[in-house]
This record gives sequence, structure tokens and C-alpha cells, in this order.
Amino acid sequence: MINYKLIIKLIGFLLFIEGICMLFALPFSIYYKENDALHILLSTLVTVSAGGLCWLLGRNASKSLGKREGFIIVSVAWVIFSLFGALPFVFSKTIPSYTDAFFETISGFTTTGASILNDIEALPHDLLFWRSMTQWLGGMGIIVLSIAILPILGIGGMQLFIAEVPGPVPDKLHPRIKETAKRLWAIYIIFTGVETILLILGGMNFFDAICHSFTTMATGGYSTKQASIAYFSSPFIQYVITLFMFIAGTNFTLSYFALHLKLDRVWKNEEFRFYTGLILFFILIVTFGLFLTRNSGFERSFRDAAFQVVSIVTTTGYITADYMKWAPFLGVIILVLMFTGGSAGSTGGAIKMVRILILFKNGFMELKRLIHPNAVIPVRFNHRTVPPQIVNNILAFIAFYMLITVVSVMIISTMGYDLNSSFGSVAATLGNIGPGIGAVGPVENYAHFPVFGKWFLSFLMLIGRLELFTILVLFSSSFWKK
Amino acid sequence: MINYKLIIKLIGFLLFIEGICMLFALPFSIYYKENDALHILLSTLVTVSAGGLCWLLGRNASKSLGKREGFIIVSVAWVIFSLFGALPFVFSKTIPSYTDAFFETISGFTTTGASILNDIEALPHDLLFWRSMTQWLGGMGIIVLSIAILPILGIGGMQLFIAEVPGPVPDKLHPRIKETAKRLWAIYIIFTGVETILLILGGMNFFDAICHSFTTMATGGYSTKQASIAYFSSPFIQYVITLFMFIAGTNFTLSYFALHLKLDRVWKNEEFRFYTGLILFFILIVTFGLFLTRNSGFERSFRDAAFQVVSIVTTTGYITADYMKWAPFLGVIILVLMFTGGSAGSTGGAIKMVRILILFKNGFMELKRLIHPNAVIPVRFNHRTVPPQIVNNILAFIAFYMLITVVSVMIISTMGYDLNSSFGSVAATLGNIGPGIGAVGPVENYAHFPVFGKWFLSFLMLIGRLELFTILVLFSSSFWKK
Repeated sequence: MINYKLIIKLIGFLLFIEGICMLFALPFSIYYKENDALHILLSTLVTVSAGGLCWLLGRNASKSLGKREGFIIVSVAWVIFSLFGALPFVFSKTIPSYTDAFFETISGFTTTGASILNDIEALPHDLLFWRSMTQWLGGMGIIVLSIAILPILGIGGMQLFIAEVPGPVPDKLHPRIKETAKRLWAIYIIFTGVETILLILGGMNFFDAICHSFTTMATGGYSTKQASIAYFSSPFIQYVITLFMFIAGTNFTLSYFALHLKLDRVWKNEEFRFYTGLILFFILIVTFGLFLTRNSGFERSFRDAAFQVVSIVTTTGYITADYMKWAPFLGVIILVLMFTGGSAGSTGGAIKMVRILILFKNGFMELKRLIHPNAVIPVRFNHRTVPPQIVNNILAFIAFYMLITVVSVMIISTMGYDLNSSFGSVAATLGNIGPGIGAVGPVENYAHFPVFGKWFLSFLMLIGRLELFTILVLFSSSFWKK
Repeated sequence: MINYKLIIKLIGFLLFIEGICMLFALPFSIYYKENDALHILLSTLVTVSAGGLCWLLGRNASKSLGKREGFIIVSVAWVIFSLFGALPFVFSKTIPSYTDAFFETISGFTTTGASILNDIEALPHDLLFWRSMTQWLGGMGIIVLSIAILPILGIGGMQLFIAEVPGPVPDKLHPRIKETAKRLWAIYIIFTGVETILLILGGMNFFDAICHSFTTMATGGYSTKQASIAYFSSPFIQYVITLFMFIAGTNFTLSYFALHLKLDRVWKNEEFRFYTGLILFFILIVTFGLFLTRNSGFERSFRDAAFQVVSIVTTTGYITADYMKWAPFLGVIILVLMFTGGSAGSTGGAIKMVRILILFKNGFMELKRLIHPNAVIPVRFNHRTVPPQIVNNILAFIAFYMLITVVSVMIISTMGYDLNSSFGSVAATLGNIGPGIGAVGPVENYAHFPVFGKWFLSFLMLIGRLELFTILVLFSSSFWKK
């Protein structure tokens, strides 16, 4: 029997927190005198009331929290957050359509960064702040989700680094989440603070600096400028953001070790090495590609290459250069990188490095097995044998990722989009990147999609963010049985 | 120690057969009085001599034939066949460039059907016949390969239907191949004959009928006409070819059962049901898509839909309609179907139905396993449990297929091709289809590729035709050790 009462109670609690978080936008309403304070307050009131109501409804719930409840809470939380998080945009009429406001908000909470706004600068500062904050909160959620919750739920290879987590050994869901969350959120907040200071030193004002730090650390990619980071031409700013995108795309437990000066644990981590190696490899190729095919100097080629490769691999989606105008093969590289994703345990989306790595390793082991059919040839990761059922789970994850991509591209193409645009919009939303290719390229946005398209792409963001299985399992009949 | 002498001896034997096969083109040289007989005879002479030389070199080889030798012979055979099979085109100067002639020939032997010819009708009849025959011989090779040899080598799930083969139980390589080959080739020849008769009844001349029957049964797709099957506007001809493409895309062991009136064994076969269901599903969608978006009647819409869906799924690559001019979402469907492929044990290429089916099944089992982590939930196929190592092998196959696609698209795009054309040419050669999308669309060809591009795409045809692993394993260091 699923404990619905407890689910409602916990959702109520989360809604209460969301409502309170909205209030952080108020100082900007006041400072920039844009008379939006009332819309924020009204949104808080509605959200907190709804949260309180849910809390009341579930007040006498039993405390038994199982896996099923875990799957439901995680899935529902992101949707409910977005349903209420859209209110400030609707109440202020800055995004009058609720569909658009929901799209913009779930794109925030899932740290995607796909926007329907044609003129971002037209938004008042407090709403821009809330928009950035949805990503930052989403990033916080993802860290806890991927490091503390998903491994317990057994999702797609997340068990692989469960022993690496700097927290108590998992027995019950609750204490583990609490401890892990506290430690990792501290790191998240520290990095956000350091980046804010560096960006201010680079010449940004406080508002832009904090908004961009929020969306960098979340690998979200919402900017306060229509031109994204291309607006800030300072190389220092662009390099700082590149560095912090890179950090945000690593497993946060590694940052924990790094800050405790256990650098060997970082460098010995195979996923980190693979992530770093892959990024350096593609930066090199793209740098030379740009240098040879574009009339820009070496530093500019390197900077654009490093920024865009890191931005896409980490699934941030910031833009400093319109890669649709690059030579075709550089555009193909960008499209391919949309699938790799950041490291597991980071705020990055898409398939993720550890899975790609296991995919490769298993492939080569399979070749060995062909030659030695009777030998036991396991896949190893970080000097440990990966159990076959986890390898299978990872392969199934990648297969579902491809299957969902293919079916979604077919669905989007029925709305009249060509292959590039269909492929681009699906890869960019399912991978939580934001900008894609074609009609959703770096200088385009998602405003032109029909209503059904916006809801469908919102669903892709959700399913991508929650590592597919969390949502897919809800569609399985055996989930609801008995 | 690899038994190279035996490899050389067997290759010599195969070359001898190829040289003799070329002589089947001679009656057409004489009948159509095109004075090409000398070029054919010269090619036969060179090929038979080379074969004889190899036979002599390996005459005292020991008879020990192991897995390693199997991998090498299979890989080398297709290359050597193409190297010599190109001679008639080069000697007659109808395809003066050896690169082009090799491309055209390996495209034949791999039953791909990708052509560099800008004017197919300009070729003399005997060479057109040889061109069609390369596909028919390639198809014969594939049937033996996929039903008798690959299962023994343990390639990508081919073991799954080994027990289904109407032949002796496998113990040694030799007798099994011989028995299986005899039975299945008989069926192949019968179907080719029946199709030839039907096409003549539909109004084709004998030459066109036999050439098209050759390339239908091989799911090769070479036509004697530049416009492919669109040249033959008779609905009867188009429906006959659709039917025989469908048959050629099924497991030939099922045809064996069907001809022995064991129809329940056909219908109970899960791969056959999946193949049939998937084809019917997409015919339905494409029919209505064409009916609604194109100004053609229902019968024409149905006929074009059925023909192109079956042609692409079976990886034949015949054309009756330029699907690049269809509504974008129909083009996307065609692209997606380029990856599914025919049934295992057919002459079709690409990933193949049984693997897609196991991929799906394993995915849904994985969802069940998430909910019941301690239960043993196996994947079942044709009422039998599929061993986990075969599931893993199949998943690894699909992963390699995707990986090779991605890397190849990147490589082709460096030659200046856009995403559509790069994707199209890779999918169409790796999947042994022929025509793709973009610059290799249904009314285009491969003549415009640079020399390196042609050799690279030839390699993709080879690796795709030999189920990836047969080639990949040769690149593995453990293959050559000890």
C-alpha cells in the first residue's frame, strides 16, 4: 500500500520552502524599484498556503517511507515546484501564457535553460533573479537526488559511486539524505559565492554576478542577457565561467575531497579522468577547427572552443559563439557532445560520463569474451568489479535514452520541424542543455513551438533530469500492483 | 598459432568460384552484342589464376580450423571478392577509377546498393548483370554467414536462433555449414526463380527480371535503371517486389519451415511477429501521412508507403518515390527505420529486429528489476530464457553500432558534408541500405565523395555487413596474442 498521506505531507513541506525561497527576489524588487513586489508576495502566499494545506492533509501520516514513495515524491516534486514556480511570471504578466511560464520554470528547475523569452532584458530584475534561482534550487535538488536518493532507488548505475559518498553508510533513507545534503550543499554554496566574487572582480555588477553564478553551478545556463555570455566580452569573465562550468560538471563528492586536500582521490577517479580527457580532446579539435576555418586568432579560437565544449558537455548551455555558423563538422561535434553529459553526482544532465565509460569498457570486454568465451571477464571501474546487473542497468539506461530520443524526434517532426530542429530540440531538452541546433540553435529559442510541443518538451526535461527510470517506472504496471 | 596456410587455401578456393561466376555474364555479352566478352574473360582469367596461386600456396595446410581462422576468413573473403570483382568494371573502362569500381563492387557484395554511377543505363548488359550478381552472391554468403558461421563464432545474439536451424546439431564447423548452406541456398534460388517469373508476367524483360530478382532477394537494391523501381510504373511489379523484399528480410530458416508447411513455427516466432508488426505499423502511419500531405490517391499512397517502408526496413534501398520530398516527419521515420534492419538470418543488414526486440524487452525487465531488486527477472525470447551474457552481447552490439555511427558522422562531416548528408551516408552504408538522406538521398548517389570518403564508406559497408564484431575483434590485441 503506497503511503499517499506521507507523500502529500512531504510535498507540502517542499512547497512551503519554495514559497519562502521566492521571497529572496524581494530585495531586488525594492532595490531596482520595479514595483513587482506584490506579484512576488502573492505567489509566495499562494505557494505557502498550498504547502500548508498539503501538510495539514497529511499531518497524521505514518512514517513508513519505501522505494515506491521515493519514486513518486521525486517525480511529483519537480512538477509541483514548476507548477507553483511559474506563478510570479503569470501574476506579473511578464509571461502571460501559463504554458510558457510553466515551460520557463520547469526548464529552470530541471537546470535545462531552454527559454521561450524573446527579450530577456525586458524582464524586471526580481523575476530574472527568481528565474536564475529556479535553476540554483534545481541544482541543489539534483545533487541530493543523484548522490543520496537515486543510488538507494537503484537507478542506472548510480550505485557505482555510493561507497564514494562522504557520508554515513546507507541504511535508512532519512539520515543519509540529511547528512549528505548538508555537506554537499555547503560546497555548492561556497562555489557559488567564490564565482560571484570573481565575476564581480571581472566587472559584472552584483546582480548579474549572482544570477550567473546560480545558473553556472546548476549547469542551467539561464542568463540575464538575451545574448547570453557573449554579452560579456571580457575574456576573464568567460574563462571564470568556463572553469566553474567544468567544476559544476564534476561529481560533487570529488569537490568535497578536493577541498579536504585529498587530491589523489580526485585524480584516481576514473570518471573524472575520462571527463577531463574527453573535454581536453574536443577543446583541442574545436580550437584547431576554428583557427583554421574562421578568421579569428588563436586565443579567441581557444576561448570559444573551451567555452562551448565545456558548456555543452556539462549541459549548461551558455553561449559565447553561434556554433551554427561554424564549419559543419564542428556543429556535428557539438551535437554529439549534447549526449555525453557531465559526471554522475554533478548538476549536469544527459547520459553522463560514467555510463559512457562503462559502455566503452563493456564493449571492449565483449570483444575479449568473443575470443575467450569461457573466461570470466568483468568490467572494472575505479579498481572494482562492476556487477553485471549494474552494467545491464547502465546499458538499458542508454538504450532508453536513445529510444526516447528517436520517438521524440518523430513526434516533434510531426509539428513541421525539420530533422536538425527536431533532433536539436529533443537532445537539448532531454539532456537538460537548453540551446540545441536548427530552430532552437544558440541565437534562437523555444517560443515558436505549439502548446503541445511545449508540454511535450517540458516532459522531456523532467524525464531527462530524473535519470529516465524514476519516471519510466511510474508507467510500469508492476509498480502499481499490490 | 593461426593457420594462415589454410586461410590462403580457402580464399584461393573462393576466388576460383568468383572467377567462374563472372562467366555467367557472358551470355548477355553475346545476346546484346556489346563486345564486352573479352573484359569478362580477362577478369575471369586474372581471378581464377590468383585463386589457383593461393590454392597452391596453401595446398599442404593442416585442416585445423578454429575461431580465429573463422574471423579472418570471413573478413578477408568479402574484401578479396570486392578487390577482384571490380576488375570487369576497370578493364572495360565503364568505371575507370579503381576506387570507384571497388566501391561499386563492395557495395554489391555487402548487398548495400550504394552506387557511384551517374548513368546506370549507359553500362553494357553483361556488366549490369555482373553488378546485380555481386549482390546475389553476397546474399548467399550472408545467409551462410549469419545462420551457420556467426552463431558458432558467438556474434551478437546470433546464438539465439541456432537451435532453430534446420540442420544437424553443431559440433564441427565444416559439416554444419555444408548442410545448412545446401538447404537454404535451395530456398534462395527458388524464391529468385519465382520472383523472376512473376516480374516477367508483370511486363519486365528477362534481363531486368533476373537482375531485379537477384538484388531483391539479396536486399541489395541495385537496379538496372537510374530511376530504380520508379522506372517500372506497373503497380503489379511494385507489389511483387514489395512482397519479395519482405520475404528476403525474414529469417531464411522460417522460409524453410513455411515451404514445409510448418506455418505455426513461422507465426510463433517472436522476431517474425515483431518484424511484421513494426512494418505494418509504419506502413499505416506513412500511408496516412502521404494521403494527407500529398496530392495522391489512397492506393498510390499505400503503395509508395508499403514499398519504401519495406525497402528501408529490409535495407534493400530500392526507390519508387523520392522520400526527401515528403513531409519532414515522414523523412524522419525513414531515417529511423534505417537503423532497425531486417530479421537475423535474412539478407537484410543494420541492427536487426531480434536485437531491437531484446533491447526493448531488457529495458522493460530493468524497470521490473527496479521495483523488485531481489527477484530474478530474465529476458525471454521464443519462450526460452535468454542467457544474460547474450543480452549483454546484444546490448554491446547496439552500443558499438551507435558509437561507430557517431564517430563516422564526425569523420564524414570533416569532408564538408552537412549533418543530414553525413548522417544519411553513414546510416545507409553501415546499415547496407544504399540510398540515404541529404546528399545521398534517393535521387542522388555517392560519386561526389572524395577518394578517402569512398574507402571509408566501403569500410562501413564491410563492418556493417559482418555484424561489427567480426571486424572489430581483429583490432583487439587479445585476438593476436599467443
